[in-house]
Amino acid sequence: MSDMPKADSGVTRRGLFGAAVLAPLAAAVPLVPAAEAAEIEPLPNFKFDIEKETGWVGEGGSAKEATAAEFPVSQSIAGVSMRLKPGAIRELHWHALAAEWAYVIEGRCRTTVIAPNGQAEIDDFGPGDTWYFPRGHGHALQGLGPGECHFLLGFDNGHFSEYGTFSITDWIAGTPPEILSRNLGLPASAFSQFPRKEVYIGTGKVPEVPLENLRNGSLEPAQMSHKYRLDMQPPKVFPGGREFIVSAREFPIQTSLTAVKMELQPGALREMHWHPHADEWQYYVRGRARVGVFGSHARHKIDEFGPGQIAFIQQGHGHYVEQVGDEPTELLILFNHPEFQEISLVGWLGANPASLVEDNFSLPRSMVDQMTKREAGILGRKA
Amino acid sequence: MSDMPKADSGVTRRGLFGAAVLAPLAAAVPLVPAAEAAEIEPLPNFKFDIEKETGWVGEGGSAKEATAAEFPVSQSIAGVSMRLKPGAIRELHWHALAAEWAYVIEGRCRTTVIAPNGQAEIDDFGPGDTWYFPRGHGHALQGLGPGECHFLLGFDNGHFSEYGTFSITDWIAGTPPEILSRNLGLPASAFSQFPRKEVYIGTGKVPEVPLENLRNGSLEPAQMSHKYRLDMQPPKVFPGGREFIVSAREFPIQTSLTAVKMELQPGALREMHWHPHADEWQYYVRGRARVGVFGSHARHKIDEFGPGQIAFIQQGHGHYVEQVGDEPTELLILFNHPEFQEISLVGWLGANPASLVEDNFSLPRSMVDQMTKREAGILGRKA
Amino acid sequence: MSDMPKADSGVTRRGLFGAAVLAPLAAAVPLVPAAEAAEIEPLPNFKFDIEKETGWVGEGGSAKEATAAEFPVSQSIAGVSMRLKPGAIRELHWHALAAEWAYVIEGRCRTTVIAPNGQAEIDDFGPGDTWYFPRGHGHALQGLGPGECHFLLGFDNGHFSEYGTFSITDWIAGTPPEILSRNLGLPASAFSQFPRKEVYIGTGKVPEVPLENLRNGSLEPAQMSHKYRLDMQPPKVFPGGREFIVSAREFPIQTSLTAVKMELQPGALREMHWHPHADEWQYYVRGRARVGVFGSHARHKIDEFGPGQIAFIQQGHGHYVEQVGDEPTELLILFNHPEFQEISLVGWLGANPASLVEDNFSLPRSMVDQMTKREAGILGRKA
Repeated sequence: MSDMPKADSGVTRRGLFGAAVLAPLAAAVPLVPAAEAAEIEPLPNFKFDIEKETGWVGEGGSAKEATAAEFPVSQSIAGVSMRLKPGAIRELHWHALAAEWAYVIEGRCRTTVIAPNGQAEIDDFGPGDTWYFPRGHGHALQGLGPGECHFLLGFDNGHFSEYGTFSITDWIAGTPPEILSRNLGLPASAFSQFPRKEVYIGTGKVPEVPLENLRNGSLEPAQMSHKYRLDMQPPKVFPGGREFIVSAREFPIQTSLTAVKMELQPGALREMHWHPHADEWQYYVRGRARVGVFGSHARHKIDEFGPGQIAFIQQGHGHYVEQVGDEPTELLILFNHPEFQEISLVGWLGANPASLVEDNFSLPRSMVDQMTKREAGILGRKA
Repeated sequence: MSDMPKADSGVTRRGLFGAAVLAPLAAAVPLVPAAEAAEIEPLPNFKFDIEKETGWVGEGGSAKEATAAEFPVSQSIAGVSMRLKPGAIRELHWHALAAEWAYVIEGRCRTTVIAPNGQAEIDDFGPGDTWYFPRGHGHALQGLGPGECHFLLGFDNGHFSEYGTFSITDWIAGTPPEILSRNLGLPASAFSQFPRKEVYIGTGKVPEVPLENLRNGSLEPAQMSHKYRLDMQPPKVFPGGREFIVSAREFPIQTSLTAVKMELQPGALREMHWHPHADEWQYYVRGRARVGVFGSHARHKIDEFGPGQIAFIQQGHGHYVEQVGDEPTELLILFNHPEFQEISLVGWLGANPASLVEDNFSLPRSMVDQMTKREAGILGRKA
Repeated sequence: MSDMPKADSGVTRRGLFGAAVLAPLAAAVPLVPAAEAAEIEPLPNFKFDIEKETGWVGEGGSAKEATAAEFPVSQSIAGVSMRLKPGAIRELHWHALAAEWAYVIEGRCRTTVIAPNGQAEIDDFGPGDTWYFPRGHGHALQGLGPGECHFLLGFDNGHFSEYGTFSITDWIAGTPPEILSRNLGLPASAFSQFPRKEVYIGTGKVPEVPLENLRNGSLEPAQMSHKYRLDMQPPKVFPGGREFIVSAREFPIQTSLTAVKMELQPGALREMHWHPHADEWQYYVRGRARVGVFGSHARHKIDEFGPGQIAFIQQGHGHYVEQVGDEPTELLILFNHPEFQEISLVGWLGANPASLVEDNFSLPRSMVDQMTKREAGILGRKA
């Protein structure tokens, strides 16, 4: 840095600090040696079309995924769009290195889950309901019908698929029959009737409504519920739309994520803001929107999103969401932090004395006095 | 993923998700780029024969180690098997980047330890006693005789040896005598009488019993004890054996680990289970056992262990321990988490409705009804 | 390790454990494969001359930085020495991946800061005052005059510059005018009057004293203060100097750092000690000192420091600070931990029985009895 020109020579500060810039994923890989990052790279792609994937398709349903393998910016969160036919079972399994969150978009399903120390829960879910299964807790999902159940899954680790799913059929298929016999109380010969390979999503009978009894009638109930009915929560209402926000405060088991359902009326603008301590992952359920993102070193990127597309905004990056089209836009959002935090541009500008704003922008005081000074959340259609 | 065949074409899901698989150590290196992990690797070796090492051997004792350098799967925990002759001193030292846990297998020894703010403790240990020294706390160990003292050390960082030990003799040998003189209150010429190189394990006199006074009589006592007598705890008793479990709840200073001593009677089976939030490190003290491990992508591995051998089971991996041979098997276990958690296969199957289990495995209801539905912990010999 | 010679053959233990040694930055990159670290590297350079940098120089002030790019050992903390002329503004900005700490060395300045949920604070600072802005909180700084204001900034991430600063002028310059118009309530045409590139440090008018009103009069006040007057705190007084220590206990918002101002009288010696759980970053304000550092594997390094120079001591490394020259020495210190902890060599030696110290060093008891056994903190000039 010793032979740097003066700033007023016309060279920008970004050029001066060129030796210390970031690779696109530097935020997720904090110790990238600076020497490898010799130039300022543009903001990475932040759009992924999960519903265009083929994914896994079987008789009982389907699954499409977006992990850091397909969508590199998404280091902290992975997503899966899953559909289960009536009675179909996403079999008993667990994830060694990710917690699972879900929001039911359409249809009905049932889950079972076991926590350490044997606490158990069985629950039914419909549109607008969410669940959260902590890392490593065993669970299963089943479609209840009528019709397909479509839900969005989010995982608190963008690489979760690499670590894979631990499926009960895989576990049993590869364990010696004598061991299984002693554990499960069946003759060793019985295990030839078990599936030889992973079932993943299998077909099944639509289970009884109301909830069935669990096989073991003397289990401890789960001491924290795994179910939160997001759409039943009183929303925050803004001129241009509504937000349903669920953090660990409202849903204590959800210790690694905050979830939001956002509705934007036609013409709405989710105002310019950032989240100081979390990445943001968005899935568009209906309608369209343009998202503009701002990163350090004057980098900007705008993209447009519609149903079945995912956006990812890195921690601390400025952004806005501009509703597009005549139908309302609805998106589901995950933050990789159990508490919700945001700072808005106009709220910030209101939290400064007029003289500082004036000098920061070299503007006349009259213009500063005209500037909005309170946050609006979601602005309505321009008058 | 766009040209994936359907699941029912005979291709397994594992093949479909081939682009997002894990390298053997991926669990410990969460941000491995998927592109580098093009194929599913088998489960890594999880057995290491620490007592077969030569290690360090001196007049006062010996030390053999298992770090991630020798035993790559063991990223979170390193171990040392150490022996001290009567009076021998594992000299005053500290570890900058690891806490130290120990279990005394045989003989007696004494420890001294200093905490920040000058709180001090001196304690004697015999078979079945454990200690825990937080990261960076200065300590020394001394054999009390009669006979050699043999203890197992565990560190909460598989790479601890790389960061080395900070030994008092090394510190003094390389510091200018004038600085030492002012610090220690001895003439600068005195330091030529100090050791010129690290002592590590030196010989010494068997110290007095009971405990000696510390040189400074006005020290604050340590506000949390560094000693926990694991074998004096009332164990959990199962049909096939016993478990002594010490987490941070019982031993508050032990903030990074949980320890277990497990005894398996001949013919016992520690049932199929997993630990949702911790790696498991095992050291076999006596007897033999077979351990079967299950990982995602239908990977299985079985190995057999005997005295002086270490097993390592990665977080969330299914496993069982099958006692082998006519003499009881005893092992020491560390988990890299201060709280103990487990989920058992049969407890989980009991926490589901019969219809779901039936459909998951395509089994007749009669067979499901026969299956065990309560966890057993350690099963006794097969009737 | 199987064919290792015995320790008493003259080979040191360091040689025996040669396969498991550390690269210079291993402490900051805990999972360096051992195979890549085939030899013991010497302790890394721990001195950097931040004030010799040219850095950024503009009409309103200047900034010089020390990040891991320029000073590789400094993985956990980055520093900036900044000067603002009267009225000059370090413009509205935030840091996505670092919290900011500061100590005012000379002159006066004013800060504004916004927290999530719109809580705001405006404060004035003079020599000896510190501030702390959590990661991502928007803030601005302004010189109050008379004369230049010089302050030292510290960031809890040695790579912070790589992630850059998020400046309000950059955000606005790259956002479509229609979006800005709706957010800020100005006509789209107004934005041609805003700066086209980052202002960074701009000129401005000296603001009113006392504090001006914020534009939005109805903001919630910040619920934790961002200001702590370090020099007003009653210091710890030692024979050779004084220490002013501020941890999160005294300054609750300062959750990632502890700060110390240390004054050493001529001839003083900050005694040999280490910090079990934190790296130490030092900036010399006035006077000179020699710092001796000790690392595992008998590695030692001594360097001398004067005004405008930075020292970095890795976690757990032994060290001392020897005052040099006739004028008192003053330094500012940051630890990357919100709690202060230290262990001193002589306190440790006092916390052991004499017999163990005797045997550890093979010294006569008379010499052990002569050794200092209480910590002194800062020793005065040698009598």
